[in-house]
Amino acid sequence: MRKIYVIGIGAGDPDHLTLQAAKAIGRTDVFFLLDKGEAKDSMIELRRQLMQAYGRPGRRVAEGRDPDRDRTPADYPGTIADWRHRRAEITEALIAEHLRDGETGAFLVWGDPSLYDSTIAILQEILAQGETTFEYQVVPGISSVSALAAKHRVGLNRVGRPFQVTTGRRLGEGWPSEVDDLIVMLDAQHAFDAYRDAEVDIYWGAYVGTPDELLVSGPLAEVADEIIRVRTEARAKHGWIMDTYLLRRRGA
Amino acid sequence: MRKIYVIGIGAGDPDHLTLQAAKAIGRTDVFFLLDKGEAKDSMIELRRQLMQAYGRPGRRVAEGRDPDRDRTPADYPGTIADWRHRRAEITEALIAEHLRDGETGAFLVWGDPSLYDSTIAILQEILAQGETTFEYQVVPGISSVSALAAKHRVGLNRVGRPFQVTTGRRLGEGWPSEVDDLIVMLDAQHAFDAYRDAEVDIYWGAYVGTPDELLVSGPLAEVADEIIRVRTEARAKHGWIMDTYLLRRRGA
Ligand SMILES: C[S@@+](CC[C@H](N)C(=O)[O-])C[C@H]1O[C@@H](n2cnc3c(N)ncnc32)[C@H](O)[C@@H]1O
Ligand SMILES: C[S@@+](CC[C@H](N)C(=O)[O-])C[C@H]1O[C@@H](n2cnc3c(N)ncnc32)[C@H](O)[C@@H]1O
Repeated sequence: MRKIYVIGIGAGDPDHLTLQAAKAIGRTDVFFLLDKGEAKDSMIELRRQLMQAYGRPGRRVAEGRDPDRDRTPADYPGTIADWRHRRAEITEALIAEHLRDGETGAFLVWGDPSLYDSTIAILQEILAQGETTFEYQVVPGISSVSALAAKHRVGLNRVGRPFQVTTGRRLGEGWPSEVDDLIVMLDAQHAFDAYRDAEVDIYWGAYVGTPDELLVSGPLAEVADEIIRVRTEARAKHGWIMDTYLLRRRGA
Repeated sequence: MRKIYVIGIGAGDPDHLTLQAAKAIGRTDVFFLLDKGEAKDSMIELRRQLMQAYGRPGRRVAEGRDPDRDRTPADYPGTIADWRHRRAEITEALIAEHLRDGETGAFLVWGDPSLYDSTIAILQEILAQGETTFEYQVVPGISSVSALAAKHRVGLNRVGRPFQVTTGRRLGEGWPSEVDDLIVMLDAQHAFDAYRDAEVDIYWGAYVGTPDELLVSGPLAEVADEIIRVRTEARAKHGWIMDTYLLRRRGA
């Protein structure tokens, strides 16, 4: 039997690795890397650093090319499903070719594998096809959301209250009802900007946990321009950005 | 100046500790423990085990007695605010008495400090009073939610979709609108039971990450009775229970 670990490695700070993740890295024969086809060097660099620090001698790396995808599709879920399917095919070929019987493979997943990541779904799709078989185990990681909250020293919820985790795209369609605390991920278009006139505080962070970390917080009306400026500059400088924020309706 | 760490230690599995948390434990002179006044031995035991494994020689432990609180209050937020206030007083007295100038103190927080935990708010309340001063830093931890998702090998969100984290009390008031994926914490009364007839899957876990871990998943209509039975038995056996679950509306 072959085994595969889906290992959450945290969202940028190498010290956010858990002991369980370090041990799993140390038991891995083959690391599967899907190159994003973008200049996300520091994301690739963190993975190399962790393999170097905790990997066993003789470990191998199997690299695949991520399929291209439409970044601004009209049919978002449909496009993602199709992209995931092509990704599953590439992943299945990598596993079939590189992981021998009795060996252990691993995917090093950014942040926590349960949060806006497709690795688990891809492995389930491969297993559902029935051609390639393996056991797999998920190792949780520190998400960018936990890292953001820690840096701002803020709770995600207020006492006894719910919070919602959503995407920039969804927030662009309107503030969800019945909830006053929102975590927004995957926001390419400053969706927070529509709420400047609301009584809302924001806790924003980009590249959280990395040496490039940027943090801004305050009443949205006062800091929205600063966030847009800082974000635009950082994006131009690095060629890409990953940022997350908490929006908190005041006095709710 | 005095320094205080708020350290997330994970929700039961000692290997969920991060390297950052282990290092912070190693730099701590005084650990503050608030005894819950309940038989939550394994929660106290994990803290002792981590201090033993990663603490420095000569570290001290300052223990306080948690204030009692009404477990079934009519005015939930008001009762919690009052309880938090009394807790802040006890905590302030502990810090003032045990943490000397130049020393580092720490609170070992269950799971992730940003999730349904009052430690950060208590430190902010103490600082706002202005009598006792210190710097503080938050170290994120693996939450029970990430641990649950990893054990069930399931994502918290579906592609491009939001999810909500809420309490059993809130779910008892109705399923929140516009969201099909719910994480429920702090549920003392099987709030899921009201959704048996809905097209909903549940991923339930108790004592996740500990040797007593219990996991049940499946269509809610089929497994609700089993969860209630397993939960009732476990609660009677241990004298207390901590459980969390994901409710996922099918075909949404
Ligand atoms: C595809 S999702 C993956 C999330 C990841 N699984 C996690 O647990 O954080 C990518 C999004 O995560 C957020 N993100 C990831 N790393 C981040 C970081 N270091 N700082 C801020 N946001 C980050 C951003 O919102 C980004 O658009
Ligand atoms: C006061 S909250 C603290 C949550 C904690 N800060 C975290 O990050 O998991 C307590 C609730 O967390 C959940 N919980 C904590 N530890 C758990 C575990 N090991 N297994 C299942 N649920 C757990 C339960 O819903 C419990 O009622």
